[in-house]
Amino acid sequence: MSVQIPVALPQNAYEIAIANGGLAAAGTWLQQAGLKAGTKLLVVTNPAIGRRYGDRLVAALKEAGFIVDCLTLPAGERYKTPATVQRIYDKALELRLERRSALVALGGGVIGDMTGFAAATWLRGISFVQIPTSLLAMVDASIGGKTGVNHPRGKNLIGAFHQPKLVLIDPETLQTLPVREFRAGMAEVIKYGVIWDRDLFERLEASPRLDRPRSLPADLLTLILERSCRAKAEVVAKDEKESGLRAILNYGHTIGHAVESLTGYRVVNHGEAVAIGMVAAGRLAVALGLWNQEECDRQEAVIAKAGLPTRLPEGLDQAAIVDALQLDKKVQAGKVRFILPTTLGHVTITDQVPSQALQEVLQAIA
Amino acid sequence: MSVQIPVALPQNAYEIAIANGGLAAAGTWLQQAGLKAGTKLLVVTNPAIGRRYGDRLVAALKEAGFIVDCLTLPAGERYKTPATVQRIYDKALELRLERRSALVALGGGVIGDMTGFAAATWLRGISFVQIPTSLLAMVDASIGGKTGVNHPRGKNLIGAFHQPKLVLIDPETLQTLPVREFRAGMAEVIKYGVIWDRDLFERLEASPRLDRPRSLPADLLTLILERSCRAKAEVVAKDEKESGLRAILNYGHTIGHAVESLTGYRVVNHGEAVAIGMVAAGRLAVALGLWNQEECDRQEAVIAKAGLPTRLPEGLDQAAIVDALQLDKKVQAGKVRFILPTTLGHVTITDQVPSQALQEVLQAIA
Repeated sequence: MSVQIPVALPQNAYEIAIANGGLAAAGTWLQQAGLKAGTKLLVVTNPAIGRRYGDRLVAALKEAGFIVDCLTLPAGERYKTPATVQRIYDKALELRLERRSALVALGGGVIGDMTGFAAATWLRGISFVQIPTSLLAMVDASIGGKTGVNHPRGKNLIGAFHQPKLVLIDPETLQTLPVREFRAGMAEVIKYGVIWDRDLFERLEASPRLDRPRSLPADLLTLILERSCRAKAEVVAKDEKESGLRAILNYGHTIGHAVESLTGYRVVNHGEAVAIGMVAAGRLAVALGLWNQEECDRQEAVIAKAGLPTRLPEGLDQAAIVDALQLDKKVQAGKVRFILPTTLGHVTITDQVPSQALQEVLQAIA
Repeated sequence: MSVQIPVALPQNAYEIAIANGGLAAAGTWLQQAGLKAGTKLLVVTNPAIGRRYGDRLVAALKEAGFIVDCLTLPAGERYKTPATVQRIYDKALELRLERRSALVALGGGVIGDMTGFAAATWLRGISFVQIPTSLLAMVDASIGGKTGVNHPRGKNLIGAFHQPKLVLIDPETLQTLPVREFRAGMAEVIKYGVIWDRDLFERLEASPRLDRPRSLPADLLTLILERSCRAKAEVVAKDEKESGLRAILNYGHTIGHAVESLTGYRVVNHGEAVAIGMVAAGRLAVALGLWNQEECDRQEAVIAKAGLPTRLPEGLDQAAIVDALQLDKKVQAGKVRFILPTTLGHVTITDQVPSQALQEVLQAIA
């Protein structure tokens, strides 16, 4: 079974292929995306993913006539730095990668973001392919061309827009994903339900469990992948560089980023932070009279059912959150912009949030 | 007097403004380019340029209502590194630059390349303005959106295409440019004559001297700036990302880069290396029957008249040059592509250069 979802960008159109057994057929998929046999490829991965899937992918690519090397980088958000990207550059130089060569990111969001950024900046831009292995990367990070690394004082502050040639999703890799990471991905899935696809939200609501890949009916997992990728692809196609609509994808991320950053990226992971951010944004929307309490409660119930937190990490200073928001990339003329739900499947963007209301919401979920 | 030359890119059109007194009127020029009063600007410069022109520029920008800060970076190609760009990021963070803020590069090619790369990658891309103060930067580096830094083992290997909002050239700054740097810029001017604008070449030929700004008639200096910028703008507009035509701008650069790199960027500067590269490419063209000896001799005479070298630096290993060519960004499928003149004002691109012919040419100019 395979599904192909177009990301219809005027200059850089590409496809998301969701295919069981996609790793073993990667060579064919890459060729279909326009990469020619004989092209030099550098696969970038991390130790755990590389051990599990690296050989299978490299063998499939070599079989299809590509010239393939592999680079393993340390795992974890704290290595998403310019220094780690430098290691990709060094390897690219050693292999004498050319403008027609390509990078292949095999792993989660960290590997995808760094590999994409290296591709964006090596020889002023070479091709790259995303092969996401985490739910978060499948439904979010690998799609849309946002690449980058962290600055010691802020996440994703250094980066570029650089679209992949192909996003190849093999759902089988989810079966070995740690449960906590699966749940983190579910946060983004729930986000698509709230901001874009009410029907997806209601399917999630109807499932007795959402907290592990094995506890989901297989057809729900397929639906989750397809509908989430489609939501992201549609939004990105309408606004590639986040000049307007695309900002809605940051629902839950404004406060979420502050929570991640203030806890040093160690207490909560990205998805958990987004879950907390959605809870806060939902309550803020209710406080401002934009959303009704009933839908807000339903959102919190789905978040909890996915095994995600609905409260701030213990001991986190709420004033520090308000302060950290000023550093967000989405700040414009010093004003923080919030994405707030108006009804399930729709959000609005506003910078008219009284700090009093924000403080009360943070207090209530402390 | 001011001349505006459009760089007619489909997505990122902008203008090159050549204006005497342009520095003092910078605020108006930036506003005309669409930057609004109240925008945060970070001016990036080096110590010598900053001392001479920094205050004048900052005052002009503040006068026009911009919020302006300044960062001074060390001068010289050896500082064109990721580590120096990190200093721009740090300052951007300190100033809390937002997506609508802009960087302003005040200086030569090194400052422009690094500032442009920081703008390309801060928050995934913010606006920037080029205010080049060297002839080389005015007629070449500041136009066309090539930004980047060096890898310890190769020049400009890390970078991005990112177009400025405006290139503002104040020719008065040339009067304080060191003579050797002026000559380096003349190498690129001569290049435009050979590859694109025969009339420009003949004007250069007709001038009794070319080796110092003060020895040129004022109208020739104006013509040089205007025609060179126009040549670059025309080529770039036809091929923004160097998928075809734009490669002709690398005339003289293939061998030039190898010469620069092998001598550690200390023996010859970029323009001198390009001059040597043009001499080599010209002779190669003659050896391959593509160009006639008479025009090739005329090229060498103009290069010599501009006070530029026409021979390889002493002691440079010719075999090492041939080897270094493989590392060039323009290599495709392992083949080095040469840009070779066919008649004054026209070049052709070929990867059919027998290494025997290349070695003989290098021998002859050793």
